[in-house]
Amino acid sequence: MKLRNLVGDRFKERPADCVIDSHALMVRGGYMKYMANGIYSSYPTLKRITKKIEEIIREEMDLVDGQEVLFPVVLPGTLWEESGRYNSVGAELLRFKDRNGSPLLLGMTHEEAAVHLVREYAQSYAKYPFMIYQIQTKFRDEARPRAGLIRVREFTMKDAYSFHTSQEDLEQYYARCHQAYESIFTRAGIPEVISVASDSGMMGGSISHEFMLLTPVGEDSLALCSECDYKSNIEAAENIVENHNGLPLEELKLVATPDASSISEVATFLQVPTENTCKAVIYQKDQTEEYVVIFLRGDMEVSEAKLTNYLGDNIHPAILDESGPLIAGFIGPYQLGTEQCIILYDQSLAGINSLVCGGNQQDCHYTGFNVLRDVGEVNYIDLSKIQEGGICPHCGKPSITLSRGIEVGNIFQLGTKYSKAMEMQYLDKNGDLHYPIMGCYGIGVGRLAASVCEAHHDEYGPIWPITIAPWQVHLCCLRIDDPQTKEYADQLYEALQREHIEVIYDDRDVRAGVMFSDADLLGVPIRVIVSPRNLQENCVELVTRDKTVNKKVDQSQIIPTTKELINTMLKAIRA
Amino acid sequence: MKLRNLVGDRFKERPADCVIDSHALMVRGGYMKYMANGIYSSYPTLKRITKKIEEIIREEMDLVDGQEVLFPVVLPGTLWEESGRYNSVGAELLRFKDRNGSPLLLGMTHEEAAVHLVREYAQSYAKYPFMIYQIQTKFRDEARPRAGLIRVREFTMKDAYSFHTSQEDLEQYYARCHQAYESIFTRAGIPEVISVASDSGMMGGSISHEFMLLTPVGEDSLALCSECDYKSNIEAAENIVENHNGLPLEELKLVATPDASSISEVATFLQVPTENTCKAVIYQKDQTEEYVVIFLRGDMEVSEAKLTNYLGDNIHPAILDESGPLIAGFIGPYQLGTEQCIILYDQSLAGINSLVCGGNQQDCHYTGFNVLRDVGEVNYIDLSKIQEGGICPHCGKPSITLSRGIEVGNIFQLGTKYSKAMEMQYLDKNGDLHYPIMGCYGIGVGRLAASVCEAHHDEYGPIWPITIAPWQVHLCCLRIDDPQTKEYADQLYEALQREHIEVIYDDRDVRAGVMFSDADLLGVPIRVIVSPRNLQENCVELVTRDKTVNKKVDQSQIIPTTKELINTMLKAIRA
Repeated sequence: MKLRNLVGDRFKERPADCVIDSHALMVRGGYMKYMANGIYSSYPTLKRITKKIEEIIREEMDLVDGQEVLFPVVLPGTLWEESGRYNSVGAELLRFKDRNGSPLLLGMTHEEAAVHLVREYAQSYAKYPFMIYQIQTKFRDEARPRAGLIRVREFTMKDAYSFHTSQEDLEQYYARCHQAYESIFTRAGIPEVISVASDSGMMGGSISHEFMLLTPVGEDSLALCSECDYKSNIEAAENIVENHNGLPLEELKLVATPDASSISEVATFLQVPTENTCKAVIYQKDQTEEYVVIFLRGDMEVSEAKLTNYLGDNIHPAILDESGPLIAGFIGPYQLGTEQCIILYDQSLAGINSLVCGGNQQDCHYTGFNVLRDVGEVNYIDLSKIQEGGICPHCGKPSITLSRGIEVGNIFQLGTKYSKAMEMQYLDKNGDLHYPIMGCYGIGVGRLAASVCEAHHDEYGPIWPITIAPWQVHLCCLRIDDPQTKEYADQLYEALQREHIEVIYDDRDVRAGVMFSDADLLGVPIRVIVSPRNLQENCVELVTRDKTVNKKVDQSQIIPTTKELINTMLKAIRA
Repeated sequence: MKLRNLVGDRFKERPADCVIDSHALMVRGGYMKYMANGIYSSYPTLKRITKKIEEIIREEMDLVDGQEVLFPVVLPGTLWEESGRYNSVGAELLRFKDRNGSPLLLGMTHEEAAVHLVREYAQSYAKYPFMIYQIQTKFRDEARPRAGLIRVREFTMKDAYSFHTSQEDLEQYYARCHQAYESIFTRAGIPEVISVASDSGMMGGSISHEFMLLTPVGEDSLALCSECDYKSNIEAAENIVENHNGLPLEELKLVATPDASSISEVATFLQVPTENTCKAVIYQKDQTEEYVVIFLRGDMEVSEAKLTNYLGDNIHPAILDESGPLIAGFIGPYQLGTEQCIILYDQSLAGINSLVCGGNQQDCHYTGFNVLRDVGEVNYIDLSKIQEGGICPHCGKPSITLSRGIEVGNIFQLGTKYSKAMEMQYLDKNGDLHYPIMGCYGIGVGRLAASVCEAHHDEYGPIWPITIAPWQVHLCCLRIDDPQTKEYADQLYEALQREHIEVIYDDRDVRAGVMFSDADLLGVPIRVIVSPRNLQENCVELVTRDKTVNKKVDQSQIIPTTKELINTMLKAIRA
């Protein structure tokens, strides 16, 4: 392909609305075009990359006995009513009606569609286990799309669904898929991806893992143990808090705390550490607007994922006004009218003898509050986020570090949530009916492309791994006004193509600087530069995008040297 | 792949709701599963076929310098407002709103998205011509989905858009695309597809062609000339009617026609041929409900496509009640109150001296009606459908025959409709601004698969061409209870795979009848049958699905013979 014909603009200026590098570079390099909030078109360069990624995914899915299918993008509402998700999923599920008024929705995952496809087929144990997957467009009406292809509304995803007759069989298959995912990320050029325990959220099920690319621009927070191999999304990591009961019991005492409504203001005002305070965080249930009050240690933060899972309901931060029963900034457990609220105690409060807490009246707090003495026996729940230096739930040492990551894939053990809800059953050898056990396995194709770019780029552009690069070789002809140079470059272009090497050929009449900065933005791993000066020495320049190779190669050796370099790069990725 | 693991049911009974064979066979063979009206999932067998079709399409599009891109499925309403289609397209365009109330729609074609992608890129003449294409999900909210994958609401389509700086350049490229389409259909195994002139309808533009598979179950009607190469969709074929002015002028006379309201009843009652009558067909505009009355010769039919194009508005058959100005069954041109209606005269009425027409009062008609004398000069328009035996608009002979066809692809010369509406311009060499000229080119992938099945099947199943067959070889092991037979078949399965032959292997413990009827439903071109009886003769049976080959092959020759047969089949398709 000649660069002069490649559809897509390249430009120098970093777009103002791009907060992360991969987004900026993929806009600047003519990979993607904004159409609407969280909705993009792909230019040919990106399409070449995603096709290669899809092919890697297909190969790995086929290796774990996956069978490719295709589910609809537009699904009938009745199907999601069967699983209960038509109502339980929030506004990110885009629901609408067709010309006849029938409810439809845009698929964001396809568990229901998978069960629908196979529930008649798989009525005998002899059909199990099996796995079906698709690579298809998804739509999730995100409130806040961001970071280019990292969080969009419309995206291409590989989603796979496996069906089993025993938990053991699921677990074995889950482990195979875990390995297949490791292969996929390795082959896509980001072997550094780690898997962490995750929260299963709206998918249902119990055990699940997310595959994370560690990067400061990631939107997920991870808890990693520096002493053992514990790795978890903080939404799924138990927050173990050891309160060494050093404080004496004190008398409960209402004190004035004028203008001090935030916990740090109160702690400063009363000269106590925030660990000795009990703060209140208030949510409301999406459906009923019922208040949910969480009491937790003043230095902790509520995990909304844990809270949602505990309640089984979607929630949003509460809107408090003066007409309601709660006095914002001064809410405490003691003598709080409980009829209209759900009151929950985070386990970070357990074992503290004496706390500062809200006084349930304007400008007042209590000191000396003791949960057992002042409100009685409560059920402590894990509702807060683990923190830097926190206790590892696996090895018990205070060795948790927090990192940020981009989720590039996830795998779930779903159990029987969907098969039960949708009445999918099979007969075992003895003629007894059972619900099959399911697993599901997702990878976002565009997000993976962007993540590779985020992991491998410099200030000038992406540095694509050879396996997913849009082309293998970028051929630059400097000085096409020189007939000999142009002729040699043209011939080399043909010769490289004859060897089935994927070449993008720049034979434009532009300055070397323009040529090279365009090449940087396309990020092709191997650059071959033909110029009058090199040809005088019977040479061609060979440079890699990652700058590890930069040499002159004799004209007679350029084809074998290029092929060898491609092979070396491929081997390095497989290793 | 082993058949025992293949996801998808096969069964004997023809489903009651399948009106055409391909639909019935593709349901019976485990290719597709109904999810909602016009919405299906694809099982692995169909997915294998459509992947091969997509690969053929890609190769042919790349050969005409196409660059693959990806547009969103969900498009912002504002984009379609730019072209005017947000309001002009009817209910088949599914419009809805996102969580923030922004109007969205499901793309049914992507002209707007194509212009959006390239209008900044292609601001200089030097970038032209170019073509971009995608293979992506489309949604069209059809009022009446039918015939399985032939007319669905959600479908996968290849749509391509080319951009040019002159009409000549577009025409040359259009011809290349026409050839590429012929290659695609040939390679997919249906070289019998013909191209016919078509109506451009809502796409805009002038010249367009549809690629048609002739079949009695097709939903399009085609006018083919038996004397020249004229081929047209009847919606686009001019209906030339020669009225040999044999009738004398008569006096206009109101006659009673009790209970005769249809044109055939009136003609019978008055003992005149229907060619000497003038009938009225009434529509209403979708937006304003304004009446549109078309007068045409009694034996002709209105072409709704011609009418819509003429009006530039969508229409529906009128609902007449007693309160309106029109008396159903008795509407005629003479003294018809015209204030509330648009009155149109089809050219089939021109040159008839004396007509029977409605009397505009209950149970009355006129005889002796003469258009010029009784209503004055009128503008005759082509609004009726060409008929069997009609006059060929190309050679002028009365040699039109009507056929039915399935539209498997279409190509359009769009002109500047979209570039003008969306303000896409480029600078020519002299620095002057112009609107680029566009072409667009579509193929429905699933419909093509179904069409091939419709063209090539017998009562037992599809007969897939080798190029798109889900597998090349179907290996049947009869009597797996015989260890020697099973062992040989297992080895042959491995050997065929080593030769990169795509094999589906049936090693189930089922009767030969079940095995063969399943094989018929999968329609794999070459069947290899291993049985104890054959092995006694050191033979294996080789049978083709189309029954042209049925022979015993020596065990030592089975691999080379199979490979040769595959090559012969491939060559036959290329020829």
